[in-house]
Amino acid sequence: MYQLYYAPGAASLAAHWMLIDLGVPIEAVRLDLGAGEHKRPEYLKLNPNGLVPTLVVDGTPVYECAALLLLLAERHPEAGLSPAPDSAARLAYLQWMTHLTNTVQATFRGWFHPQETAGEDVAPRVKDFARGQVELAWDRVEAQLAVSGGYIAGNAPSAADFLATMLMRWSRNMPKPATEWPAIRDYVARMKARPSFTVLYEREGLTEWA
Amino acid sequence: MYQLYYAPGAASLAAHWMLIDLGVPIEAVRLDLGAGEHKRPEYLKLNPNGLVPTLVVDGTPVYECAALLLLLAERHPEAGLSPAPDSAARLAYLQWMTHLTNTVQATFRGWFHPQETAGEDVAPRVKDFARGQVELAWDRVEAQLAVSGGYIAGNAPSAADFLATMLMRWSRNMPKPATEWPAIRDYVARMKARPSFTVLYEREGLTEWA
Repeated sequence: MYQLYYAPGAASLAAHWMLIDLGVPIEAVRLDLGAGEHKRPEYLKLNPNGLVPTLVVDGTPVYECAALLLLLAERHPEAGLSPAPDSAARLAYLQWMTHLTNTVQATFRGWFHPQETAGEDVAPRVKDFARGQVELAWDRVEAQLAVSGGYIAGNAPSAADFLATMLMRWSRNMPKPATEWPAIRDYVARMKARPSFTVLYEREGLTEWA
Repeated sequence: MYQLYYAPGAASLAAHWMLIDLGVPIEAVRLDLGAGEHKRPEYLKLNPNGLVPTLVVDGTPVYECAALLLLLAERHPEAGLSPAPDSAARLAYLQWMTHLTNTVQATFRGWFHPQETAGEDVAPRVKDFARGQVELAWDRVEAQLAVSGGYIAGNAPSAADFLATMLMRWSRNMPKPATEWPAIRDYVARMKARPSFTVLYEREGLTEWA
């Protein structure tokens, strides 16, 4: 049994979605970020960074969304979301999972919390820099999708696609959302067509970017 | 045969070190970052981001240091640097490999390139913020080492330790280097005692933090 701590639409979305997609039993615990539930002592014992997601696996808490996706994909090999070792897809899978989290996801911090880096007065500049970096990331993903066969790591979905789609969703209110790139637009449509996406939206109570 | 594109002391160090540690044959290609060799068209074909490292695996280029460590560890299981699936160490391994790259490594960008986020005039503020974030990261790693059994993912070394040590090395000229934390200091001494560390220093021509 997995216990997932999440907040609607947050960095927990990809892990929540993948758990639903895998069809494994979960206990999903919603945190109210506005009320600071992720900064309370009992939650900080599970995740000292006070962020979502945290997944409790057989009693052990694990955090970092990309780590949860890698872990869930390999714990449930029957779903085929973890490309086989020594396959060409494996190379792309590990590269993109890493790149999506350490570059694309990390860059969004400057877009969503631009004041934290250097103060309110330069927040617009920090935000503008982040916007440029995020758009550059979509250029790279667009190029990959053009040659990959339709998904991030090849011609079949992998756990990396859940992370990529979550990050694309985060760009929906930016001046140039990811879906302005044509291969990404088609890709997002394919990912949204998974029945698990509809269930995820119901469970998290989401409406935007449906 | 692996072909590694690297620059001394850069984000390629952990991958270079682990390749030496594994004892596998490699062709190491040194890039002169000062001369912009990582921005030349022939290199951008391998890595469109123009960064090191890139590892060519049986003709296919792969980038992102953490991805290379995950990949090499699983391709060479005899070295024991990839904790077994379903082990407790596996949870810590994936969590920390992700956290080290998407939070610690990503944060160093603000320390080393503080002008790129919002311009020269606020570079000192960006740098100061990065310093605080890096120090917070060492608090977390210190706490993990205090309970883990001596290494990032448990009582035995894993690929995540090569990444952690590389990042600790990056802090050597900061106001409070990682080695000011006592458990980290002991840990770094253990990692430096690996014979591969001496070979790495010889091959990359490094002297600082020897």
